[in-house]
Amino acid sequence: MTPTPIFVASIGTGGVGKAFLAQLAQLHTRLSRQTPAFDIRLILLRRSSSQVLTKDYSNLGFDIQLQSGASQVTEWPEVVKFLSSAPGKVVLVDNTASAEVGEWYPEFLKKGINVVTPNKKAFSSSQELWDKIQAASPGKVLHESTVGAGLPVLTTLNDLIDTGDKVKTIEGVFSGTMSFLFNSYMPLGGSAEGGFGGEVFRAQKLGYTEPDPREDLNGLDVARKLTILARICGLKVASSQAFPVESLIPAELEQVSSEDFVKRLPEFDSVMEKRKKAAESEGKVLRYIGKINVSKSQLEVGVKAVEKSHPMAALKGSDNIICFTTERYGELPLVIQGAGAGNDVTAMGVLADLLRIARMG
Amino acid sequence: MTPTPIFVASIGTGGVGKAFLAQLAQLHTRLSRQTPAFDIRLILLRRSSSQVLTKDYSNLGFDIQLQSGASQVTEWPEVVKFLSSAPGKVVLVDNTASAEVGEWYPEFLKKGINVVTPNKKAFSSSQELWDKIQAASPGKVLHESTVGAGLPVLTTLNDLIDTGDKVKTIEGVFSGTMSFLFNSYMPLGGSAEGGFGGEVFRAQKLGYTEPDPREDLNGLDVARKLTILARICGLKVASSQAFPVESLIPAELEQVSSEDFVKRLPEFDSVMEKRKKAAESEGKVLRYIGKINVSKSQLEVGVKAVEKSHPMAALKGSDNIICFTTERYGELPLVIQGAGAGNDVTAMGVLADLLRIARMG
Repeated sequence: MTPTPIFVASIGTGGVGKAFLAQLAQLHTRLSRQTPAFDIRLILLRRSSSQVLTKDYSNLGFDIQLQSGASQVTEWPEVVKFLSSAPGKVVLVDNTASAEVGEWYPEFLKKGINVVTPNKKAFSSSQELWDKIQAASPGKVLHESTVGAGLPVLTTLNDLIDTGDKVKTIEGVFSGTMSFLFNSYMPLGGSAEGGFGGEVFRAQKLGYTEPDPREDLNGLDVARKLTILARICGLKVASSQAFPVESLIPAELEQVSSEDFVKRLPEFDSVMEKRKKAAESEGKVLRYIGKINVSKSQLEVGVKAVEKSHPMAALKGSDNIICFTTERYGELPLVIQGAGAGNDVTAMGVLADLLRIARMG
Repeated sequence: MTPTPIFVASIGTGGVGKAFLAQLAQLHTRLSRQTPAFDIRLILLRRSSSQVLTKDYSNLGFDIQLQSGASQVTEWPEVVKFLSSAPGKVVLVDNTASAEVGEWYPEFLKKGINVVTPNKKAFSSSQELWDKIQAASPGKVLHESTVGAGLPVLTTLNDLIDTGDKVKTIEGVFSGTMSFLFNSYMPLGGSAEGGFGGEVFRAQKLGYTEPDPREDLNGLDVARKLTILARICGLKVASSQAFPVESLIPAELEQVSSEDFVKRLPEFDSVMEKRKKAAESEGKVLRYIGKINVSKSQLEVGVKAVEKSHPMAALKGSDNIICFTTERYGELPLVIQGAGAGNDVTAMGVLADLLRIARMG
């Protein structure tokens, strides 16, 4: 049997993009040792300022550097045309965090170009774009890594729904940064000393936050992930700002420099300290949680006191945890837990999606 | 677009078989409300003593009872012939626990008949049968529900392997009965009163054990699941009896009646009590654990003392938990947790596999 050619266009050459190409190269090597089902060919590599492509749809090779022989980017309609003319199945892999690329998904899908991506933007902006993407065919779109990176979150949710289970609630810790901060600030069983501001400083030093920690503390990343999960459950969510999201940035520090922000944050420690004491007195711990109540169409994101016996309380490091309570998984939730960020695990989710598309009819 | 016909043959009409047909019926109803991608047709329903089939490959309907119009079972070669002559994609769904059906998988697969099943027998008996099944094509075989029922265990393990991660260890609690027994006998944080024998009695009364609890306490069910996981990781495992499995049945009670077994088990409480005290003195709890060390090719099943901070210690009810430690999920494992037994969640895993096959090219 001749292996089926799979034409891959990879957009974005940041951390995830590089990890993805490295995994693709390894896959290619593994496949070449057996009778391969697929012949994966990289036919376009692109970032915001430059690109390289093979007009004859041969393989660029997976160790290609964008510097050598790269030309200026072509307009998106030309990319659509180039990809849709490939002699076989095409997968656009969007490893950017660009909203602009996301807006083109419906066009790609309509032309039969499949899309796999860890880019949350297209799925968490307007409901209108979401609906357009869902309605566009015959191309297929998979985006496991938009929530919990490589953890099997969307695959599991889709299996629950496809097999007729009724999802009642989804709740969890969806941010590695928030997980790290609260697991350190209020560990299960242990006694924490430092204030919340100090934890943010420490997390920043250890590389667990964005360069400006406010990008994590505003809760918007969690809100985007929750929006995606809720829409998969069939809820209409106008945008990721259409429901209550608790920001942990004191109003006074919203406009200061990022250096000043981290320096001055401990001035506000008493606010979180009060909540910590209240939780302690109830035998609970604080966690930064996203929760969807599907039957009530409610989403909310913020700091909550949770029972010490709940899996969310026992979280460690910067792990994510996602708990599905459904009709079938009723008494105790179906729980998925593990690293929810990082280039390798994100790229893994993207590659697993690519393989799923490759195997589809 | 005309929906693709998917011809389904369902073997076994016990609890899982019934739940599967009910879910299939609901799926059919849901699909009929939209433009369906698939036209699912039940063309054979069979149990050990009787069967009903449609010679013209039309749909039997999903509410069919085997009593009405059922005829005697035909020989397996005839079933192979009937199914392989269907005008489209065929899926044999084996909802039995029969070793005999499992031995026929290679023949079905060779004729292009796909197999989905929660039946552990074929995958956990000889390595030879496993190898035959893996080598057989063009039919595809999926068996998510053989480990952890509907929990995404095999899907996740396959994704890890397919994307090039290196699995180092897999450990967990793979038996709902064992989970219930030890979570009650030695709950995290709480103090347990009763002896181990009393817990077995209680679990039996609540329906958490087989009618004869020795079928759970011998550990063989866990050994079968571990064998399957190890083989997916590429290990050769001669059989599910080829590695150390701790039985919790006192030698003196192996031959007595099941009534006498439960009655006399408390006589042996001191044995487990000693281990409990030892674990307590180390600040640990006892759990019945299966563990695969992939790099060392080691499998073992038995009672282990685990750190209170480990997710396996915090288990509740009769939940299963499976922890993957890999190159990418290094520091903290990827954890999947939830109900690992029950007709509905088992059937859900089977139906999800069926849909995966339906979507494959």
